[in-house]
Amino acid sequence: MKKLIKGLKLGDHYDELFSYTQNEVDIFAKISGDLNPLHIDEEFAKNSIFGKRIIHGYLGTCIFSKVFAMNFPGEGSIYLKQDLKFFKPMFTIEKYRANFVIIEHLKDKHRALFQTNIYDSKNNLIVKGEAIIQNSKLL
Amino acid sequence: MKKLIKGLKLGDHYDELFSYTQNEVDIFAKISGDLNPLHIDEEFAKNSIFGKRIIHGYLGTCIFSKVFAMNFPGEGSIYLKQDLKFFKPMFTIEKYRANFVIIEHLKDKHRALFQTNIYDSKNNLIVKGEAIIQNSKLL
Repeated sequence: MKKLIKGLKLGDHYDELFSYTQNEVDIFAKISGDLNPLHIDEEFAKNSIFGKRIIHGYLGTCIFSKVFAMNFPGEGSIYLKQDLKFFKPMFTIEKYRANFVIIEHLKDKHRALFQTNIYDSKNNLIVKGEAIIQNSKLL
Repeated sequence: MKKLIKGLKLGDHYDELFSYTQNEVDIFAKISGDLNPLHIDEEFAKNSIFGKRIIHGYLGTCIFSKVFAMNFPGEGSIYLKQDLKFFKPMFTIEKYRANFVIIEHLKDKHRALFQTNIYDSKNNLIVKGEAIIQNSKLL
């Protein structure tokens, strides 16, 4: 557990750059059981409205789970709520930015409401979300 | 893609029984980057409030992604929205039931709002969620 940030407050924010490989998409397809050919079948995806394979929305957004546990707030975070709106598909060749902002802080409950959005390299909004995290030491 | 269900309507429902292995949790930790020791470190988890390792909320609920793509509605589903409230932790030794109910049907848009809940074998509500799916052939 690295980069512990103490004393988070309203308005604090954090950015994480990330991307996924097709190998990770294939592995996620196996462990989730979501074998939608849009994610794993190159030929099928080429003839779809997306033109190529897309990342599972669930895999693309699990960066939220990673950052809450590891970075912002970090160790001891308990996931209470995550809302996700999938606006655009995600692709393995793209680089993305996950942006976190504390938009409400219930200090007495050690909880915070985070805006959790994903943007592509051209700053298009790809996923819009909100999460509630509890962390008795860092919130 | 199997078990295509045609002409879904308000009130239609579907159940899927599932479980995860510790090996799947370990693999998910690697591809997501969420290396929270609560999920992967047996000794650490033993001394936590949960008493043993718990499944990542993201892995535990990706059954929703699987069922929407594969079973209910099935092929051609596009994920627009997923809300998740994590009420209780999930464990690898447990068997769970994901329950899907169509609670709103926008037939002209080929979209439906689904209640997506997860229950344990004693029928305790573990995760409460809602999702919006678009499927031009099946909704």
